Amino acid sequence: MINETYKEMLKKKSVIRELSEFATARGKEIGYENVFDYSLGNPSVPVPQDFNNELIDMLGSMGSMELHGYSPSVGIASVKDAIAKELNDRFGMNYTGNHIFPTSGAAGAVAHAVRCVTKPGDEVLTFAPFFPEYNPYINTSGAVLKVVKANVKDFQINFDELDAMMNANVAALLINTPNNPSGVVYSSETLSKLSSYLYKKQEEYGHDIFIISDEPYREIVFNGVDAPYVSKFYDNTLSCYSYSKSLSIPGERIGYVAANPRCTDAELISVICSQISRGIGHNCPSSLMQYGVARVPGKTADMSVYETNMNILYDELTNLGFEVVKPGGTFYIFPKALEDDAVAFCNKAKDYDLILVPSDSFGVQGYFRMAYCIDTEKVKRSLPALRKFVKECYGR
Amino acid sequence: MINETYKEMLKKKSVIRELSEFATARGKEIGYENVFDYSLGNPSVPVPQDFNNELIDMLGSMGSMELHGYSPSVGIASVKDAIAKELNDRFGMNYTGNHIFPTSGAAGAVAHAVRCVTKPGDEVLTFAPFFPEYNPYINTSGAVLKVVKANVKDFQINFDELDAMMNANVAALLINTPNNPSGVVYSSETLSKLSSYLYKKQEEYGHDIFIISDEPYREIVFNGVDAPYVSKFYDNTLSCYSYSKSLSIPGERIGYVAANPRCTDAELISVICSQISRGIGHNCPSSLMQYGVARVPGKTADMSVYETNMNILYDELTNLGFEVVKPGGTFYIFPKALEDDAVAFCNKAKDYDLILVPSDSFGVQGYFRMAYCIDTEKVKRSLPALRKFVKECYGR
Repeated sequence: MINETYKEMLKKKSVIRELSEFATARGKEIGYENVFDYSLGNPSVPVPQDFNNELIDMLGSMGSMELHGYSPSVGIASVKDAIAKELNDRFGMNYTGNHIFPTSGAAGAVAHAVRCVTKPGDEVLTFAPFFPEYNPYINTSGAVLKVVKANVKDFQINFDELDAMMNANVAALLINTPNNPSGVVYSSETLSKLSSYLYKKQEEYGHDIFIISDEPYREIVFNGVDAPYVSKFYDNTLSCYSYSKSLSIPGERIGYVAANPRCTDAELISVICSQISRGIGHNCPSSLMQYGVARVPGKTADMSVYETNMNILYDELTNLGFEVVKPGGTFYIFPKALEDDAVAFCNKAKDYDLILVPSDSFGVQGYFRMAYCIDTEKVKRSLPALRKFVKECYGR
Repeated sequence: MINETYKEMLKKKSVIRELSEFATARGKEIGYENVFDYSLGNPSVPVPQDFNNELIDMLGSMGSMELHGYSPSVGIASVKDAIAKELNDRFGMNYTGNHIFPTSGAAGAVAHAVRCVTKPGDEVLTFAPFFPEYNPYINTSGAVLKVVKANVKDFQINFDELDAMMNANVAALLINTPNNPSGVVYSSETLSKLSSYLYKKQEEYGHDIFIISDEPYREIVFNGVDAPYVSKFYDNTLSCYSYSKSLSIPGERIGYVAANPRCTDAELISVICSQISRGIGHNCPSSLMQYGVARVPGKTADMSVYETNMNILYDELTNLGFEVVKPGGTFYIFPKALEDDAVAFCNKAKDYDLILVPSDSFGVQGYFRMAYCIDTEKVKRSLPALRKFVKECYGR
């Protein structure tokens, strides 16, 4: 008797995954270099050699029982301390290691954070456009994900829509800046306004409302863009980070939850997270990877290609008359489609070997996402196909 | 509003963990070498150098995007194939990679397997003595763990007690051979009898009953002991394995679920497991570790010290008049205490710097566990303390 709930989940196959599979299959026909695959958000730049060198060094020099031995269920103390120090140095926070819980990437961080500060039946609000995997992270916890309508003008927060959705059952807001899929970074103005609003609502309802801040793209911010640290604005913030993008190591599943030292029960968060992990038998991320990331504080892969690609695409898209908000970071851009039905639009693009993701699963209709974590040379080669597609299908 | 359910879990602190902390604290007073710490089941032998060498080799030679890139949510295909091949070669099975799901150790494997084949309200039966972490793995899934009384004669299965507990709500049996804490290995006779019994019950109830076979100690089997492969006996078997003990890498969190190719929905199990992982944001174990274990099929650390220690302790305990079943594997021994109250017995032992774990949390009263994954020299040094304790407290 296989569990029917999980069987049911299988039917809701990820649109992104399906498009990626289509691109791979098409690649087998015409050569993958000729498929302009903008489907998957997979980091395309190499791991910094320093990181691999640190792993090699530890494998050669550390005692194997220290290196590969059980991690405490709350994470390795020296690793937690190193992460706290890095965050304090960069953002003027005052974390200690006790506020840090190592996780399997931002995915694990968000899933743990939600379970930490909600109970079944509570509502978690997020803002369209949003990463569709938030659905399983939240809905399998017993809490319910509700989506606040997008502010399509600039993809900052639509406060009227937020206020319309807010109620006493809301235990947390899940935000994502820099944002997948829009590429937009929340401004200080947005975060200040959000903070004031939530302090007021906490007082009104007489209970905590947490911000769960999903920050896997924190290090991918473009020239001249200010990317404020969310937790500086609001005490009840749990910051969810991943090294997947910054170090180009998504397969290693390493990230953390950082609980603002001024949040409710701040010192308990990582302990509670370890209890959540206990139930699913996950315990901690790889001990080697915990030690590894702690050894390269602030280090990132060379991610300049993402900004180069963004500028090329942004210029071309605006030239072609697309409505598009300029991304401040990430490796995504989120233009308005040239017809109301984004699925139809993206289907037509397939005929030009352009693999674009319709916006519907991100909670917005009529837009599409391009993940430009690919070679710049390929981005350039895709432009004639884009022009041809727009001209032949939409007469522009 | 921190989730109260998880806060409540904090109060049920692990007895083993508390004893281990006591041993550490006592070690600071008198030197840890003088504390005979038999509390924790932490592998004490080094990682095989070959394993570290393979990791170093991959870090130096494989493309970083291949090595550290996203693992498919069902695990890396070549890794799954390698694990299937190893199991087929050793046990005459016919797994394919599609039957294998990489997990974070046996803990992750058991937690996933349970979620796969039960629904909330279903019963999972296990047999005392049992690993206490089964409680969170099962009870947080919505299923309910029920414990079949121990057969203290030889710690094989007590079939009368099993039959008394069996009912139509039972969806799975969770067994653990070689067993923590008893060290006993289930015989072919036990497994054949269990299999026949379950086939009969499946027919009677008209639904599947799965065996979830927790096998982290599969490679620690002592001279002359036959350790049959559970899945050979019963089609609806999910084998849960960990490399933590066999390669001495418990911190790396790597293991797998292997679904018997003849079980119901055999090809679906790993896909369903990937959906379960999705909800908790865990996704896969570290890609480096997946590749690593696939490169050293059948390799184990030198675990001969465990058998040496077992023989020393078994001889001394029997000489001192303890009732004790000789372990067939693991690094545990589970003698009967010298008074009915095992907690009182273990508390008295503390005065002799002997750290023993009372059996109560393993679901049996009046026994104690010794984890002899420590240096042989220390085991020998502990014997005078053991003799003194027994003589002074129990006049033997």
